[in-house]
Amino acid sequence: MFEKEYDVIVVGGGHAGAEATAAAANMGSKTLLVTMNLQNIGQMSCNPAMGGIAKGQIVREIDALGGYSGIITDMSAIQFKMLNKSKGPAMWSPRAQNDRMRFAEEWRLALEGTPNVDFYQEMVSGVLVEKNNVVGVRTSLGIDIKSRAVVLTNGTFLNGLIHIGEKQFGGGRAGEKAATGITEQLVDYGFDSGRMKTGTPPRVDGRSLDYSVMIPQPGDIVPEKFSYTNTLPLNTQVDCHMTHTSELVHDLLREGFDRSPMFNGRIKSIGPRYCPSIEDKINRFADKDSHQIFVEPEGWKTVEVYVNGFSTSLPEDVQYRALKSVKGFENVKFFRPGYAIEYDYFPPTQLRHTLETKLVNNLYFAGQINGTTGYEEAASQGLMAGINAHLKINQKEPFILQRDEAYIGVLIDDLITKGTEEPYRMFTSRAEYRTLLRQDNADLRLTPKSFEIGLAKKDRLTRMEEKLKKSNDFIAFFKNTSVLPKDINPILESVSSAKVKQSDKMFKVFSRPKVTMEHMLQLEAVSKYASENSFDREVMEQTEIQVKYSGYIEKEKNNADKLHRLENVKIPEGFDYSKLKSLSHEAREKLNLIRPVTISQASRISGVSPSDISVLLVFMGR
Amino acid sequence: MFEKEYDVIVVGGGHAGAEATAAAANMGSKTLLVTMNLQNIGQMSCNPAMGGIAKGQIVREIDALGGYSGIITDMSAIQFKMLNKSKGPAMWSPRAQNDRMRFAEEWRLALEGTPNVDFYQEMVSGVLVEKNNVVGVRTSLGIDIKSRAVVLTNGTFLNGLIHIGEKQFGGGRAGEKAATGITEQLVDYGFDSGRMKTGTPPRVDGRSLDYSVMIPQPGDIVPEKFSYTNTLPLNTQVDCHMTHTSELVHDLLREGFDRSPMFNGRIKSIGPRYCPSIEDKINRFADKDSHQIFVEPEGWKTVEVYVNGFSTSLPEDVQYRALKSVKGFENVKFFRPGYAIEYDYFPPTQLRHTLETKLVNNLYFAGQINGTTGYEEAASQGLMAGINAHLKINQKEPFILQRDEAYIGVLIDDLITKGTEEPYRMFTSRAEYRTLLRQDNADLRLTPKSFEIGLAKKDRLTRMEEKLKKSNDFIAFFKNTSVLPKDINPILESVSSAKVKQSDKMFKVFSRPKVTMEHMLQLEAVSKYASENSFDREVMEQTEIQVKYSGYIEKEKNNADKLHRLENVKIPEGFDYSKLKSLSHEAREKLNLIRPVTISQASRISGVSPSDISVLLVFMGR
Ligand SMILES: Cc1cc2nc3c(=O)[nH]c(=O)nc-3n(C[C@H](O)[C@H](O)[C@H](O)COP(=O)(O)OP(=O)(O)OC[C@H]3O[C@@H](n4cnc5c(N)ncnc54)[C@H](O)[C@@H]3O)c2cc1C
Ligand SMILES: Cc1cc2nc3c(=O)[nH]c(=O)nc-3n(C[C@H](O)[C@H](O)[C@H](O)COP(=O)(O)OP(=O)(O)OC[C@H]3O[C@@H](n4cnc5c(N)ncnc54)[C@H](O)[C@@H]3O)c2cc1C
Repeated sequence: MFEKEYDVIVVGGGHAGAEATAAAANMGSKTLLVTMNLQNIGQMSCNPAMGGIAKGQIVREIDALGGYSGIITDMSAIQFKMLNKSKGPAMWSPRAQNDRMRFAEEWRLALEGTPNVDFYQEMVSGVLVEKNNVVGVRTSLGIDIKSRAVVLTNGTFLNGLIHIGEKQFGGGRAGEKAATGITEQLVDYGFDSGRMKTGTPPRVDGRSLDYSVMIPQPGDIVPEKFSYTNTLPLNTQVDCHMTHTSELVHDLLREGFDRSPMFNGRIKSIGPRYCPSIEDKINRFADKDSHQIFVEPEGWKTVEVYVNGFSTSLPEDVQYRALKSVKGFENVKFFRPGYAIEYDYFPPTQLRHTLETKLVNNLYFAGQINGTTGYEEAASQGLMAGINAHLKINQKEPFILQRDEAYIGVLIDDLITKGTEEPYRMFTSRAEYRTLLRQDNADLRLTPKSFEIGLAKKDRLTRMEEKLKKSNDFIAFFKNTSVLPKDINPILESVSSAKVKQSDKMFKVFSRPKVTMEHMLQLEAVSKYASENSFDREVMEQTEIQVKYSGYIEKEKNNADKLHRLENVKIPEGFDYSKLKSLSHEAREKLNLIRPVTISQASRISGVSPSDISVLLVFMGR
Repeated sequence: MFEKEYDVIVVGGGHAGAEATAAAANMGSKTLLVTMNLQNIGQMSCNPAMGGIAKGQIVREIDALGGYSGIITDMSAIQFKMLNKSKGPAMWSPRAQNDRMRFAEEWRLALEGTPNVDFYQEMVSGVLVEKNNVVGVRTSLGIDIKSRAVVLTNGTFLNGLIHIGEKQFGGGRAGEKAATGITEQLVDYGFDSGRMKTGTPPRVDGRSLDYSVMIPQPGDIVPEKFSYTNTLPLNTQVDCHMTHTSELVHDLLREGFDRSPMFNGRIKSIGPRYCPSIEDKINRFADKDSHQIFVEPEGWKTVEVYVNGFSTSLPEDVQYRALKSVKGFENVKFFRPGYAIEYDYFPPTQLRHTLETKLVNNLYFAGQINGTTGYEEAASQGLMAGINAHLKINQKEPFILQRDEAYIGVLIDDLITKGTEEPYRMFTSRAEYRTLLRQDNADLRLTPKSFEIGLAKKDRLTRMEEKLKKSNDFIAFFKNTSVLPKDINPILESVSSAKVKQSDKMFKVFSRPKVTMEHMLQLEAVSKYASENSFDREVMEQTEIQVKYSGYIEKEKNNADKLHRLENVKIPEGFDYSKLKSLSHEAREKLNLIRPVTISQASRISGVSPSDISVLLVFMGR
């Protein structure tokens, strides 16, 4: 059926597989995407939303590198919010609600429109290996398809087992079959595999809810968007709604605990700590008498609704009784109950920084198969695996992002060096240099790098260079232009900032805490310059951030450099970690056990966080 | 989970289930649709097209009755053709190509927008029966849901087994699970079940085809549409293309015959005679050295293409090699191979004319589960089952269509009285009164009946009554208005029809073979009357048909009446059928075996066709 050899075969058309396919193909590799159901490409298994804190930054990075997730998100968004806008720009995190069906359809169409991509619908049952090199895949029909590299992105499908209450049945996702064969083959080959679990809430009929007693959660008044390309921001949006659980709801849930697969020992694997099920939440935080629930529409037109915050694998009758007691859900009708799913993953310490496996050359793993959770985490790994598969088979240098270059760098470095024993998701706190890794500058950070390796196209680079030039010009303008007291003082007064006595450089007043770009634009010279140079919103924002946070940014750059240098500091033999009370409990244990020789080695131990490293450095007088 | 009792539960969201749900709910029944995957409602399992010969008439009937299939087809069509336009209006058959994804999405949204419809995603594993009455269903999670009636529309999913070459695996459709439990339970209860099979061709990448060597198959220049409501006709359309197989292709296919599940005995059940696989075709028609292949796009934007005419369950390598030798397919890339599927059905002789089972009260079967094949056949049964389930639980008279009222009447009467041993599809030849059962008058035939039972809404009736009144007025106008020789003769001359000597009623000249409405509209009196009364295309067409075919229509009405009366004629004991050479071979055999007492009984024997009955009647001097 497949005469020729492909350059890259991607197994699985989830978020990881879709990005891997796009990246490899866009770089010029003849790429085949093999997936179990071609109608489910880029399917959102759980909540119909992209981005959020740290995750939004990842999507911006994917976009800056020339991946598709940002574009697809913009095309299928029904609501957009910039989270944390009240905090510093390092915390700003874009998030979109999406139309689930549109999202998947746009992914499929985007891949269909990408040259070098072929498609095949079937289950892959194993990889073909010759002398430690992967040479293709074998499908469940017994078809061998040859290739020079393979990217496995099987998500939650490998030996997937779905749990609802005391019932369990095979499946990769509700209504879809599990995938078999791959784990067994790889374990035979010497790979380690483990089991993880995740869960999802019930889907309900929006017509059965009383929104009038919930709190509307509208999108931003002036919505931005994910992609640096010319996708359009939304001009109409759909509201989400907020409600919350109560003691009664918790009591009703507790009634099912003895039949919960989480608590009766049936599910042994570990779930995502930061995406806990509702039963987990009321169990772990027994003192909290209420948890928030976000009611998220599944699309522009459908009445189906996603009950964010109510993930559960309790028996369906318990789910139902409890949810009915949530304010606004008194008459709720279920589309389907929540469930948990257990699946195989491969501890990612078996990978190189390129996501290539150490055991088999040219075989890459990306996404949930590496023990991560989340669409964005999966997509970014897919992108990096696709890039590196292409580079490798073309004898090019690997493409690795450092921890101070991208969240993606943090993600992969964490996985590779620390491994993970529970589903790994990204947080801003995982990044040491998060003031550098902002959502507004992902293009400045990454597009040139991606252009260099042949992924980001010229127009992306041009766009980014223009933005950079314009914001640099604008910053220079503020640095070089002075403002008279009579012009600036009314503004300073309006924000209760001390007046100036004599004319001063604009940069200096602009740096003051409460002075914003909006204020500066009230100065005729500024607004004239801006409009003459037709600066857009993005340039204004970039300029404002660079001016107002220049201090922080500089400091963090220095810290980063220092940390880089200090990371190789030696730790005295027999060092007694127990006296360092400010180390986390887990770090102390692991350090005492593993006894690293350098701070750098210490930093790579699972459970030792960047802040533990800081503690060590401080103690060692650095 | 489901506190209250539903009026009607529909199991399965295919074409039958979707129509059943809409019908029961629109009549006022609280209806629950339980289906295995809510994202696949109204999924087109096989070709992305609706209608065609006899099937198009069924869709028009469904629409006239207030079903949704016509509306959904119009909303998702990418091409429209009125087939057989060169023949008499009894043969005119509307057919649309559809965007597969849009079709399913529009169905889902239409049901979501229908009051009284609830949704639940799960597999039903059995029905609840108490004292011969169905009282609900049980799901695979063990949830009991109560209802007063249940409609089973399981399609090809009951113990579905997919075959490709020598491989076989469980599944209800490619990539979807089979459904288990129901057959076993019903057989325990005393139902007969059987096995049937059907097949589907490979899906391929349209970008890999050379359309320049194929024959374009565009849609109609002025496309019509399916629904009598105000849906819009297409203003842009997508072309299909035609190519054909060759001796070489057939030879390549034959190479796989020893591995064909059709020929090596692995598939024992009978497939659709009139939708044969390509291997069937070259086997049965060994003298034909070429078969047509229609290349049908799967939607507006997708590159996926459906290879109509190439249904096959040969091993995938054989499929591939053979298809590559088809003109234009030299570089074909597969999305997935064709396959055959075997599934359980229930011989429909176990049903009443309402589609209620004889064994269990208020339990209805509709669609492929009854041994039919085709979306239209399924949808129409679903509609009728939904209607009758609602009527029954409300102690109303059943709604049964006669053979001279609708193709739907013919379909159900055939199923119920004759049963079927192979997948049953509709043909115009199955209808004795096909000049009455035209696509143009389905509304006139059925909308008043549907309005009476409370399904078709007032605006449908009003629309139909207006059409009826206007066309009757127009007919009366032609009957009452005379035309002068000087006005009509130029027209008659232009079509080489004998001139008239003196003025004559318009109706009479209009009745002449070559004279069309277009000609008549050249007469000032006619065009003035038409525009004064703002007659639209539909009224014109209806009028033209009624005028020009009045003779045939009258004759058929009389024939129908006669046949009705004659059907009860007795057949002499010991009658020797072998002397009636014009009986079909099959009919002679069956009649000799069963020895019916009346013509009516004879007509119900499977294998005895309406034309066999005519032969008998003629012989008996009627
Ligand atoms: C029930 C559930 C709940 C979840 N809850 C959360 C949550 O609360 N928070 C969160 O952040 N994330 C959650 N996730 C995880 C999130 O969906 C995944 O992280 C993300 O989808 C992973 O992307 P992926 O590309 O790695 O895999 P997936 O999106 O799972 O895609 C895998 C793809 O591979 C295909 N495939 C698998 N095996 C084969 C094979 N052998 N041959 C061919 N094709 C194959 C599948 O058909 C599928 O298309 C949940 C997932 C599930 C299923
Ligand atoms: C491979 C294939 C090839 C075909 N080829 C042709 C052809 O060449 N020509 C032709 O005319 N027709 C063909 N058909 C048939 C056509 O698809 C069907 O006639 C039509 O779809 C039948 O409609 P239905 O509603 O009866 O069932 P389906 O469309 O099969 O729908 C059945 C629905 O019921 C659901 N379901 C089943 N069991 C359960 C359960 N226990 N619980 C909950 N939900 C359940 C399923 O999920 C599905 O949604 C083919 C079908 C298949 C699968």
